[in-house]
Amino acid sequence: MTHTTLLDDVRELIATRERDGVSGLAGRIGPAEWSELVPRLDSKELAVLIQWLPDAELPDLLAELDPTAAAAILRTLSRPVAADLLEAMDPDDATDVVEELPETEAEQILIQMEPAEAAEIRELLAFPPDSAGGLMTPAFVAVAPDLRADHAIAALRRVAEDAETVYYAYVIDAEEHLLGVLSLRNLVLARPETPVEALMVRDPIRIRAAADQETAAHLLTDHHLLAVPVVDDRDHLLGIITQDDVADILEAEATEDIERLGGSQPLEVPYLSASIPLLVRRRVVWLLLLFVAEAYTGTVLRAFDEIAKVLALSYFIPLLIGTGGNIGSQTTTTLVRAMGLGEVRLRDVGRVLGKEVVVGLILGAIMAVVAFARAELLGTGAQVAQVVALTIAAICVWSATVAAVLPLLLRRLRIDPAVVSAPLITTLVDGTGLVIYFTIAKRLLGL
Amino acid sequence: MTHTTLLDDVRELIATRERDGVSGLAGRIGPAEWSELVPRLDSKELAVLIQWLPDAELPDLLAELDPTAAAAILRTLSRPVAADLLEAMDPDDATDVVEELPETEAEQILIQMEPAEAAEIRELLAFPPDSAGGLMTPAFVAVAPDLRADHAIAALRRVAEDAETVYYAYVIDAEEHLLGVLSLRNLVLARPETPVEALMVRDPIRIRAAADQETAAHLLTDHHLLAVPVVDDRDHLLGIITQDDVADILEAEATEDIERLGGSQPLEVPYLSASIPLLVRRRVVWLLLLFVAEAYTGTVLRAFDEIAKVLALSYFIPLLIGTGGNIGSQTTTTLVRAMGLGEVRLRDVGRVLGKEVVVGLILGAIMAVVAFARAELLGTGAQVAQVVALTIAAICVWSATVAAVLPLLLRRLRIDPAVVSAPLITTLVDGTGLVIYFTIAKRLLGL
Repeated sequence: MTHTTLLDDVRELIATRERDGVSGLAGRIGPAEWSELVPRLDSKELAVLIQWLPDAELPDLLAELDPTAAAAILRTLSRPVAADLLEAMDPDDATDVVEELPETEAEQILIQMEPAEAAEIRELLAFPPDSAGGLMTPAFVAVAPDLRADHAIAALRRVAEDAETVYYAYVIDAEEHLLGVLSLRNLVLARPETPVEALMVRDPIRIRAAADQETAAHLLTDHHLLAVPVVDDRDHLLGIITQDDVADILEAEATEDIERLGGSQPLEVPYLSASIPLLVRRRVVWLLLLFVAEAYTGTVLRAFDEIAKVLALSYFIPLLIGTGGNIGSQTTTTLVRAMGLGEVRLRDVGRVLGKEVVVGLILGAIMAVVAFARAELLGTGAQVAQVVALTIAAICVWSATVAAVLPLLLRRLRIDPAVVSAPLITTLVDGTGLVIYFTIAKRLLGL
Repeated sequence: MTHTTLLDDVRELIATRERDGVSGLAGRIGPAEWSELVPRLDSKELAVLIQWLPDAELPDLLAELDPTAAAAILRTLSRPVAADLLEAMDPDDATDVVEELPETEAEQILIQMEPAEAAEIRELLAFPPDSAGGLMTPAFVAVAPDLRADHAIAALRRVAEDAETVYYAYVIDAEEHLLGVLSLRNLVLARPETPVEALMVRDPIRIRAAADQETAAHLLTDHHLLAVPVVDDRDHLLGIITQDDVADILEAEATEDIERLGGSQPLEVPYLSASIPLLVRRRVVWLLLLFVAEAYTGTVLRAFDEIAKVLALSYFIPLLIGTGGNIGSQTTTTLVRAMGLGEVRLRDVGRVLGKEVVVGLILGAIMAVVAFARAELLGTGAQVAQVVALTIAAICVWSATVAAVLPLLLRRLRIDPAVVSAPLITTLVDGTGLVIYFTIAKRLLGL
């Protein structure tokens, strides 16, 4: 069954208001499908769906949705119903949704909740959403160091339903300091009477609540962990972050980088949920900045009145600066990504520059041949063709160099190199490319 | 300890040839650090490191490296030593490395290996590296359906050292058909004498060996699995893919998309390992294609000899087509990423187009005001300023529309929309933007 026909099925069931059909959907559709279907439904369809789906399905459905979408659904419900739903969700997922609600509405729902569950959410709300603290769940399993292995397994069994993972248990002292971590694997393999202290890995890898979520993702990935414990500044265990979250973090970070590289500010919501004013706001800032930077090309063109004498020179302006922009875009996107993955660091500046200058020279030589042929084809004469060929070679080297140096320079200045977008490099090499062009033209044509 | 000082430490230890110091490094440096350090060492430093590191450390070190780098190290070793190292690695990691060796060298190392271990690698080599089969490991735990829970735990205990994960065991029949999956969690929670058949999840989520690795990553992520079983066309269990691999897959796919969006073909190796000829090859194809497409601008400029009459028109050429390129780049990168994440599908073409046309109109209006001001500032007179303002508004709408439609059109034609790079959109709107410019100029200026 493809998603298209599934969406049509769901729409039809909703439209015909077949209650049994709608509630029966829960059995056919998994969480992954819900998260794709729901953003495509309109608000009336959603209302029917929420009314008729079995109550037990809704918390899972909300957890799989983008928090913005889940919050929108929550606002259509009565406060006691919304409170019940939040209680049934994992605290970390519930917090993400509450964060998207207007503050007063969030407060009105929180006071309807069980005090203990509301307190958990309030604690999590205190951390920025993209920090380790904002991502963690307090639903971990903690045991005392003197517990026996078989009792620890029994403890895991008791909390299995509510815990986010039962594959790790954390050993804490009376003040909740993190002492060690215990894998279910080791517990199962051990003799029943062994104290967990003898089985645990001491001084395990941990992350501070204030650390960036990307750091948490890389810790989990690099050390092949199923979960990483989150602690405060005095090493109290606050929560855990599980492997589940890694894919979301990595995808969100890559999306941000891609959007920045394309020349906009990150949307931070799924494209279809982004309103038109949001799209405009995210794009207009860079457009205006780039316009101001590019405006320089007008000044250059007015200053070089050689154009009037040899009009044919103007034919090649878009071609020359376009090629420079293309090489710059290729270099900068590859490099910014490599820096984002930690493959290239500041100290590699020499190697990067060496490579890019040589690559620029080779590409410049190839493009010079092609550009010469193009100029001859346009019938501009050999002299102009020579100017064009020489210019494109110079622009290729210049553009590759600027695009290689700039991201590293920004990193040096502690600015995210992803702000060096393809449009920014293109803009920077446009004006300078024109200067190169007219300088070469003046010399060679004796203007 | 920062990586920089760590690298310096390692370099110094190697340079001073302090054998104890070098072998002592193994205790201080984890796998994640090795994978960052090794690509930065030169070949002589590497040789010392490999000679002096404890043998037990090397397989882990190789597994963490990029397979190209690991293969390069393997080629510096004698064949029996290389064979021992491959035997000690997990079969899926070993296969990735063998894939990077020249065929004859790979064969010479494989025949030095234990026949059973070599056979495992040969089987894995049969699958394309980016397929589920190429990614899987045969190191899973399989049990028969009539085994008791306590015996299953005992079986897990026996193989715990060699298995990739002991958190799932797979239930297979005598012909190795996949019947179900069993979590260690359920095994531990069950009564000892229960047969695993009663505990297993029947008909579990599985993936065909020929499927794309990205599909495997999304199955693991969407269904919150620690591992997914890989089967052949007749449902025989061949191997498993674990959560470990998800981050690598997602990062590799995002890197490919980013490099494509920047206008090059994907490098497929880390930037610092990419040779100059490789960088040139990956960039030159698109550069030449874009040059040919952009060459059209020369024809347009020659055809409109109005430039000669109103030279001021030429001042705005880079500014107008540059802005069009910027909007196109913003739209296309956002959209291609959203399509890559499955947020936007073909059927959404109406919504996307509606949004982008309105966004283009709003941005066009804003840019028109700024462009008018810029023209007045350059002293071109109100008439030319009007032409420029009107043109930039038209180009904004046109560019947003083309950039919105093209990726969806390519998806319709079953071409990867990521080929619509920022440079491609820029190039496409350059020529058409000039036509718009001169058409408006002719009308308004009565040329």
